[in-house]
Parts: sequence; structure tokens; C-alpha cells
Amino acid sequence: MSLPKVSPSSIIQISRIMRPDDANIAGNVHGGTILKMIEEAGAIISTRHCNSQSGEQCVAALARVERTDFLSPMCIGEVGHVSAEITYTSRHSVEVQVNVMAENILTGAKRVTNRATLWYVPLSLTNVDKVIEVPPIEYERKQLEDEGRKRYDDQKLERMETKERNGEFIVPVVNPEQYTVGCSQSSLIHLVGPSDCTLHGFVHGGVTMKLMDEVAGIVACRHSKTNVVTASVDAINFHRKIQKGCIITISGRMTFTSNKSMEIEVFVDADTLVGDTEERYRAVSAFFTYVSLSKVGKPLPVPQLVIESEEEKKRFEEGKGRYLQSKAKRQADTQSLTQQ
Amino acid sequence: MSLPKVSPSSIIQISRIMRPDDANIAGNVHGGTILKMIEEAGAIISTRHCNSQSGEQCVAALARVERTDFLSPMCIGEVGHVSAEITYTSRHSVEVQVNVMAENILTGAKRVTNRATLWYVPLSLTNVDKVIEVPPIEYERKQLEDEGRKRYDDQKLERMETKERNGEFIVPVVNPEQYTVGCSQSSLIHLVGPSDCTLHGFVHGGVTMKLMDEVAGIVACRHSKTNVVTASVDAINFHRKIQKGCIITISGRMTFTSNKSMEIEVFVDADTLVGDTEERYRAVSAFFTYVSLSKVGKPLPVPQLVIESEEEKKRFEEGKGRYLQSKAKRQADTQSLTQQ
Amino acid sequence: MSLPKVSPSSIIQISRIMRPDDANIAGNVHGGTILKMIEEAGAIISTRHCNSQSGEQCVAALARVERTDFLSPMCIGEVGHVSAEITYTSRHSVEVQVNVMAENILTGAKRVTNRATLWYVPLSLTNVDKVIEVPPIEYERKQLEDEGRKRYDDQKLERMETKERNGEFIVPVVNPEQYTVGCSQSSLIHLVGPSDCTLHGFVHGGVTMKLMDEVAGIVACRHSKTNVVTASVDAINFHRKIQKGCIITISGRMTFTSNKSMEIEVFVDADTLVGDTEERYRAVSAFFTYVSLSKVGKPLPVPQLVIESEEEKKRFEEGKGRYLQSKAKRQADTQSLTQQ
Repeated sequence: MSLPKVSPSSIIQISRIMRPDDANIAGNVHGGTILKMIEEAGAIISTRHCNSQSGEQCVAALARVERTDFLSPMCIGEVGHVSAEITYTSRHSVEVQVNVMAENILTGAKRVTNRATLWYVPLSLTNVDKVIEVPPIEYERKQLEDEGRKRYDDQKLERMETKERNGEFIVPVVNPEQYTVGCSQSSLIHLVGPSDCTLHGFVHGGVTMKLMDEVAGIVACRHSKTNVVTASVDAINFHRKIQKGCIITISGRMTFTSNKSMEIEVFVDADTLVGDTEERYRAVSAFFTYVSLSKVGKPLPVPQLVIESEEEKKRFEEGKGRYLQSKAKRQADTQSLTQQ
Repeated sequence: MSLPKVSPSSIIQISRIMRPDDANIAGNVHGGTILKMIEEAGAIISTRHCNSQSGEQCVAALARVERTDFLSPMCIGEVGHVSAEITYTSRHSVEVQVNVMAENILTGAKRVTNRATLWYVPLSLTNVDKVIEVPPIEYERKQLEDEGRKRYDDQKLERMETKERNGEFIVPVVNPEQYTVGCSQSSLIHLVGPSDCTLHGFVHGGVTMKLMDEVAGIVACRHSKTNVVTASVDAINFHRKIQKGCIITISGRMTFTSNKSMEIEVFVDADTLVGDTEERYRAVSAFFTYVSLSKVGKPLPVPQLVIESEEEKKRFEEGKGRYLQSKAKRQADTQSLTQQ
Repeated sequence: MSLPKVSPSSIIQISRIMRPDDANIAGNVHGGTILKMIEEAGAIISTRHCNSQSGEQCVAALARVERTDFLSPMCIGEVGHVSAEITYTSRHSVEVQVNVMAENILTGAKRVTNRATLWYVPLSLTNVDKVIEVPPIEYERKQLEDEGRKRYDDQKLERMETKERNGEFIVPVVNPEQYTVGCSQSSLIHLVGPSDCTLHGFVHGGVTMKLMDEVAGIVACRHSKTNVVTASVDAINFHRKIQKGCIITISGRMTFTSNKSMEIEVFVDADTLVGDTEERYRAVSAFFTYVSLSKVGKPLPVPQLVIESEEEKKRFEEGKGRYLQSKAKRQADTQSLTQQ
């Protein structure tokens, strides 16, 4: 038997069997489970790359995840394969592209379930506020580098714009009417433990995304009262790190409904209970889109959101904008997939 | 950015979906899972409160849990909501009252499943043997403070009394007869890992209670050979802390059976194997009551415990005393609940 | 970006970051964590292979693991890569060879930590007592097939011989002396939950091995009172399946000590408490070897086992035989590795 081979340093593959705890009661694997696997693959490959040249040791921290579509849900017993590849590097950040496939090892059937793009920033292991320089990658063609640079500039611009949105909070409603925002809004609390964290002692982005998906799923299920699955996640920016020992509050509220989908806005707020500087701050926010599924897995119509205030109306219109935009983009992507 | 207000610092709510691993094969969530959630909520709120005034940083450690009834089991897929509130503070301890609700997010149905009262003591983060002073809370009415002080005095008295009981051990029996104490007694071992511990490096009270419920459930299942669920837990006193890296042995034996319930006594013993001071000591003990359920969730009669010694007879009679007392108390509580 | 690629069906690689929960307090990953990853890779690849020809659907069940050496422990934060390959098929069984590497993604250093050989048997998904025929694999050279057949015949013979050993039980000892067998013997109990099981509803072999390693580690730690790590596992035969809902008791006792190693015998007994046919049976047994490590990771001398009976003496001598045999074999293997 020949010596073991690890994949070349610019590709990694994570595979595992989906278990009952990864899934909802209908047996569909939570989108959050997939997001956590995707982020683990991204963290491994970008940390490996950023330490590949001699110099200060660092750990790659997730800075942003681009919009991600969930093309079809995985099921318990299927094997999920997540493969990640570094596709662009700027001076201080790494772009990782990830493909997720579901394999039914009984029938042999395989299908693509996700693609995702993540941006990482390498932070010094000894001084977590210091960003390390990223070793450049080599591109097969000049065009790939140019396209990467364009994606880098686009996301940088968008990250600045979204910094504005963080003033809002979810205020509890007493005795809400059915199908209103107040009726389905939910929040959960998590005490950050050691296994949630990187070598730095800061929460893995994937752990945060898994919790965000969980609260979004509860909001969607409360609204539709059916089995629900994650259809997509809008771009997520990780503005601030969350330290071990923090308490995080993850809150979600419905912002928009189309005929067959629900958009949920999710906020993550961190509390440093014990520590030098006690403080509460917004760490992350994002929009999740859920669909309702029948017992045989067919999309169901969803009850329309009942709007009660001017603010809710404004958020609904913005959600509609995102919905129409992503619908257009998805159609374009599907076409390009078909043509490959 | 204004400071977010999700809940006033004296109330906290933890929610999460119940997963397959939280439950037994009949789909009923383990009582220990609920106890662990209850304790996490209590630990967060009391740690937060005790650090709310400038001074030495501290972590709240569980000292005692009052008797807790499980009114109805939760099921996989339901959302468990645990809300905790500080209801009394003495100079060195914090009383937390907790309500647990199960929500079926498909039907919208909600029901109260538990109420619990926990006592915490704040220990210095840098010197775990030092108890910190608790900032006083404000009471809406003088009466609430007086009632709290009475509860404080009552539990203090009871804690002293129970210190006596700790000399006993569960001695193994070779080839036991069916339905005897020796036939169902069980013990399990757990190596304390990082995720079991607080920031101090000591085991969360909730982790210990979850393991205690697990062993009690095994004893009950071995005796009745049916699906069993936790009906109640008697007051639990946490005499001594358990450090990371310890090995803990959790042992249970049946002490009493009524027509439809089984009482199990559980001991937790800690071994500090690796370290400066090698030692084995009793850390916690408690009584759990279990009931046997049919496939449609109806309580079943349980086989009567076969008594073989004077000591077992004595423990049986004591168990009967606790059974009759708690039956009387439960009936009183149900009445007061109905009248609310 | 090109279409996602899954490895060819005869190879699979599982990778993940090692977390605090995977390791002991000294930061060394438990051998059981590695064994569980190895078995997951083997289960995926052999189930996939056995379903690759049209016919009855089946799930591969672990029948045997050959002796496995742990060349060096992994650490928290390292990435474990497990790659599995099918190396031989008989009519009813599949041989899988697995390599494990540890990668320090900060320094880029990689090292082989394990090699393992596993045997799987495909069982019908609808009738778990029916063994399915295995599609044959193609060999690069005739010699590979011949060597595989020899390994197949050898393990078949050895499996029959070890069926004898299953009559023994670990009898509890009251007030044992230090360094005796009774002093360190330990057992733990586990209620088999949904996430422990395959699609058949039977426990994954990897889950069983993880628990076995856990109890062996506790025995070793109780005896040596130092940090301990798994050095090797003797061949393990999985005589009988364990069903969801069973209670399993995993017991370990020390059988032999050399200057720097401890051999622990581990039994797994299953109880089918709830169900039509109540029964208790020996499901698995195995020998684990542990070494004691100092704070800087150097092997330490271990206290010698104190023998108290003829039976213990017999087991000690048998252990010594295994020790000398495997020492000779390990030296031979190391030589052949160096020459590659």
C-alpha cells in the first residue's frame, strides 16, 4: 500500500454522513449544518494557505459569506461532500469557493446542493488585532485574477454599505395577531463554549451561521406551521469577533413573504459578561429565505405576512427588492449551469 | 448605535428546538436535557447580575435546586422555552426562578412543562474559593422580599440537614434476583471535558444533573422494562465543586415504588486522579422519580420493588414518606395553578 | 469555476479540525475520536461500493478491525485527514485500508498518525439478517488480489478463535488495594440514541470503539494517575449487532503492564430492555494499550500491576505474549516504512 496522500494545499474536501441531529423532523438537513461544514472547510484551507510562507503564525477569520442558494435539501443517511478551493487573494484577504454535493450511497445518486464564496482575513495568533499579509496565489490565466479582483472590489463596497443597517432591534410584542411580524419573531441565547472557538478563542463563523439558521427556521415554522427548509442566505458580513465566554443572543423576524417563500432577518448580539470591558454589541446580521414543504417535499404556498406599521412596510418593500433581484440572478445562474 | 435592549438584565429566555438526541426512543425529551437548559439560564442570569456592579469579576456556581416537577414531557421537534428571573438576593446568594414551556410550532400549542427554583453563589474568577458580595435587587413590594427571605432561610436549614446523608455507597451485587434493588442498580463514569465546564474550569451544575437523570432513567428502565420519563427531582444540593479533568462516577439505585412511580437515589462521586491532591469525594446526591409510559403515553403500573434487607426497608419507608409528602404538595400546587 | 468533483468511488477522504471536546486535558486527541473517524470513512466507502451494482439495497456493517497502532497523538487545532480505500473483496466482505494524517495548518507540518484495516459485511436494508453479495473490485496486479485473499483467510481464522473468550465478566471488588486489577477497573453505561446508529438502526462500529477507548483511558488513568494516550488497539471483532434503544455497558480491566505501557481488556455488553425479546449479550471485546505521558509529552514509567489471583496471573502472561509479539511486529513495520 502506497503512502497516504493529502490533497494539494489549495483544495480540501470534508465529507460526513448526515445524522438525525443534523436534520429537522421531516429528515431534511438544516441549512445551518451545511453552512457550518462549508465554513470549516474554508477556515482550514485559508489558515493553511496564510501560514504557508514563513513568518508570523496566524488563524484565518471569516469576514464575509456571499449570497448562498440551497438548491435541494440533503437527507439523513446521505453523505455530504464539501470541497473548498482558494480562488483569489488580495493583500489582506482570501477568497474561498466551496461546492457541496449530496451523495446517496445506496443509489449512487449525486447532486450539487450548494455553492458558496467566503472571504477570510488572517489574524496574528499572538495579537488578534493584527492582520497578516496573505501570500499571493498563482492563477492559471490572467482573466481569473481580473475576475477575482472585481469580486473583491464589489464585496468591499457592499460591506461598507451594510454597516449602516445595524441600528435596529427586535422589540417583543405582547399578544400579537396571527401572521404578523410579532407573532413569529423569535430569539435564542447561546453561551459560547470552547468547542465553538478557533485557536484564537473566538467563535467560528460557521457556529454563528448554524445558530442563525436555527432561529430563522423557528420563525419560518411559526409563521407557516409546516415543514420548512432553508432556500438561501443573503451575503453575511462578520463585523466583529465574538470571544469565548460571551453570551450571544440570536433574534429573527420575518420581513417579507412571496407566494412560496419567507424572508427572515437575523441579528446576532454579543454580551461580554465577564471580562475587562463589559459591553453589548451587534456582531452579525443577515437575511435568510425559507420555503415551506409538503410531506412529499413539494413547495407549498405560504401565508402572507400581515403588515402593521410603516417600518414593517418599508422592510417588506426592501425584502421584495432582494427577492426580485435574487430571482433574476438565480435564473441566470441556472442557465449558465445548464450550458456547462 | 444605541444599546440594544432585548430583555431587562433580570430576565433571560433560552429557546431551542428539541432534537432526536435529546430524547428517548419513544420521542420524549429526557428530564436531564431540561434540567441542563434550566441551569444554563440560571447561570447566565446570575453571573450577569453579580458582575453588574464594578468590583471583582465572578462566575455564579450552582449551590442548590429546589424540588422540580415535570408536568408533561416535551417531544422532538417542539421548541423548549426556558425563562429565568432573579427573585431574591441575600448577601452571598442569588435565587433564580425558572419557567419552562413547550411550544409545538406547527400547531402553535403551548404548555407549561416545569417550574424550578435555583440558588447560585458568585465565586471570584481569579480565586475560586472566595465568595463575592451579591448586588441587591429591587423588589416591587416589600412582601416579595419577605417571602424570598423565608425561602432563603428554609433552604439554608435543609442544606445543613442533608449534609448528613453522604456516607452511603452503592455496593455491587453478584447475580441479583429480578425486581430487587441489586437488579436495577447502575452506575456510569464520565471524564469531565472542557465543554462541561464554566469559565472557572468547574463542571456546570446542569451537566451533572443531566448525567444523574441519565443514570436514574437507566435504573427505572431496567426495573420496569418499559418506556420511562422523569416525573420529578427532589431538592439537590451541590456540596462540592468538580474540576475539569476529574472522573465522575454517577450511581443510582431504586429506593421506593408506588403503584405508578419509582424513586431512584443517585450519587455523584468525583475522583481527582491527575493533580496535586488525589482524592475521591461525594459531590452531589439526589432522588429522582420516574413513571412508566405505554406506547400511547399513558402511565403504566410498575413492578413492586423486592426488599431484601433492613437497610433497604428503611430506605423504602423514607421514600414512601417523600412520596406522600410530594403528592400532597403537588395537589396543593395544581389547585393554586388552576386558580391563577 | 468548474463543476464540483467527488473523489473516485474507491477512495474517500474525511477531514476535520480537532476540537477541545475531542481531546483530554493535556490536549491530546482521544484514540477513540480517531477510531470513530476511521470507521465512518470505512462505512461510507464500503456501503457505496456494495450498492454500486443494481440489486438489493444494503448498508455495510463493521465486522472486524485489525490491530491498529497510534504512532503519535493529534492535538487540538490540528486537522485530521482520514483517507480510506477498498483493497480487497470476498463474496460477502469488503476490506478497507485507512490512513490517518495530522496536519498542523500553522506550521504546515504533516505526519502519519495511524493506519488501519477494517472488514465490512453488507446487510440488506430491508432484512438486516441477510448478507448481500459484494461486487468484486479490479486489482492493478494479480499479486494484490493474492495478498488480500491471504489477509482474508488469516482474519477469518482468528475470528473463529476469539469467539471462545466471551464467557468472562468483570466482577466488582469492594475496597481494592492500590495498583490491583480491582482498583482501576471501570465501567460506563450508554443509552443508544438515534445519532449513534446507521440507517438500519444499529450502532455504528465507530461509536462502540469510541466508548471502548473512553473506558480504557479511564482505567489507565486510574492506575497511573498521569496523562495517558492510546498507543494501540488489538484486533476487534464485532460478533453481534447492537440495536437502537439498547443500553450498553462498557467495562474495562487492566491485564498487563510493561515498563512503559498498560494493557486493558474491554467488554461491551448489550441489554435489550424494552422490546419483544429481553436479552443481555456480549457484543464486542478488545485489548487497548495505553502509555503514560509527562507534561512535555515524554513516555513515563508506569506502576506495575499487582496480581492477586491465578486468573489474573494467567491474563497477565497472555498480555505479555501479545506485548512481545506486537513489539516485534511494530519494529518490523517501522523498518519497512523507513525503506519506502
